[in-house]
Amino acid sequence: MKGEIEIKVRGYHLDIYAHVNNARYVEFLEEARWALFDDSEVGKEMISRGFAFTVVNINVSYLSEARVNDVLVIITDLKKIGNKSITLSQKIFCKTDMKQVVDAEVTFVLVNMKTGKAAVIDEEIRSIISQV
Amino acid sequence: MKGEIEIKVRGYHLDIYAHVNNARYVEFLEEARWALFDDSEVGKEMISRGFAFTVVNINVSYLSEARVNDVLVIITDLKKIGNKSITLSQKIFCKTDMKQVVDAEVTFVLVNMKTGKAAVIDEEIRSIISQV
Amino acid sequence: MKGEIEIKVRGYHLDIYAHVNNARYVEFLEEARWALFDDSEVGKEMISRGFAFTVVNINVSYLSEARVNDVLVIITDLKKIGNKSITLSQKIFCKTDMKQVVDAEVTFVLVNMKTGKAAVIDEEIRSIISQV
Amino acid sequence: MKGEIEIKVRGYHLDIYAHVNNARYVEFLEEARWALFDDSEVGKEMISRGFAFTVVNINVSYLSEARVNDVLVIITDLKKIGNKSITLSQKIFCKTDMKQVVDAEVTFVLVNMKTGKAAVIDEEIRSIISQV
Repeated sequence: MKGEIEIKVRGYHLDIYAHVNNARYVEFLEEARWALFDDSEVGKEMISRGFAFTVVNINVSYLSEARVNDVLVIITDLKKIGNKSITLSQKIFCKTDMKQVVDAEVTFVLVNMKTGKAAVIDEEIRSIISQV
Repeated sequence: MKGEIEIKVRGYHLDIYAHVNNARYVEFLEEARWALFDDSEVGKEMISRGFAFTVVNINVSYLSEARVNDVLVIITDLKKIGNKSITLSQKIFCKTDMKQVVDAEVTFVLVNMKTGKAAVIDEEIRSIISQV
Repeated sequence: MKGEIEIKVRGYHLDIYAHVNNARYVEFLEEARWALFDDSEVGKEMISRGFAFTVVNINVSYLSEARVNDVLVIITDLKKIGNKSITLSQKIFCKTDMKQVVDAEVTFVLVNMKTGKAAVIDEEIRSIISQV
Repeated sequence: MKGEIEIKVRGYHLDIYAHVNNARYVEFLEEARWALFDDSEVGKEMISRGFAFTVVNINVSYLSEARVNDVLVIITDLKKIGNKSITLSQKIFCKTDMKQVVDAEVTFVLVNMKTGKAAVIDEEIRSIISQV
């Protein structure tokens, strides 16, 4: 599971400090995850099995600043598949010099939409998730 | 139908020009409408009749700039009840000097959630809407 | 002046009705304008002359609904160059069937960043703007 | 340093799952911090000394779901003042039953706006920050 997208920083992404706002980065990370899962067969497969991807933790370190017109590269990588949760590593770099802007870990569970509970990640699901 | 709310401008509401961003004002206007309808009996009454409020047009003029720490006063007023649509006037002022910041008209319809079509606004609905 | 971009609708663009939220469309329209101006020589030329693009009016009609995974096509076109203002036509279509989702007009002025006032759009500026 | 604000969940705060979206919670947490610092003397004091509050890490656990019309209570508390950074604990509860929705830690530094570097938090700053 690995994905890469690019987002160009616009004036409306910034806040009072003329840097990309914290909440906006969380949206950029979400966009990268959608691009990875929903544009791939893995996302469709999980949905067809009745699972919803539900984020349970985000841990985001802001390392340097991005400014208007910077092109950001967001790399999403599988970090760990646990018994009930999956952790992704998401890193954002400024494309010009590949200086790292954000370092994040996002942990989600697969919620069974019938029971509303987090599913146990068995060997089959593990192997599908690992494919991406 | 008349409502008034206040929102204090924060750093994360601003954009590259250090003014409140256009899309954010649209959210402020939506907040004012929710405060008017959902916190009142009129909103509950419409929902219990199976109607959804669906915006069909917004016309927003940006008259002056709001900056961080400005307290904005948003006044929402009924402008017109048509055959199938309702138009609200929404004005945003800066509280310190009551200088007008935004002048907006928002037109919505009541969509019948069963048929998915805009309902005709009969005398009964008209009188409920006018009460607020 | 004409531009076209595509945006894929994600889960975080939706609101309680599972449709793209009104304020989010205003952001999509802004993204399309940034793509047109800031990624082009015209934007750079205006900035080098000390002008800021300042939106004074948006008029947005919501014609039909967009849902998750729809790919939206946003077409931005020059509608009118006035004495002091420029009006763009912005239309959003659903890519699958090219059904129109949004019809918008956005009017902006070129604010002289030294004086803070809207500049008169002379023949030279008019011809640069028309080029895009 | 302790603060409490309330935010009522609106339809435009939700996403495809009809729950408050992750990025929106990050904005709610930011609103709570602004309310604490910018509406207090401590914020003004830090700004007058030439410091900018810059978030370096957010760690957000999503514990349960908030839905439309829920009133959220956000409690912000000082957790730790380090040598160069300050960590806040921010908890979000649903007002009706005080069930916890979000558990977050937010770490920020005081950036000296002249040097662009994180300031050492001396005894004087420590005592001011602790006062709130």
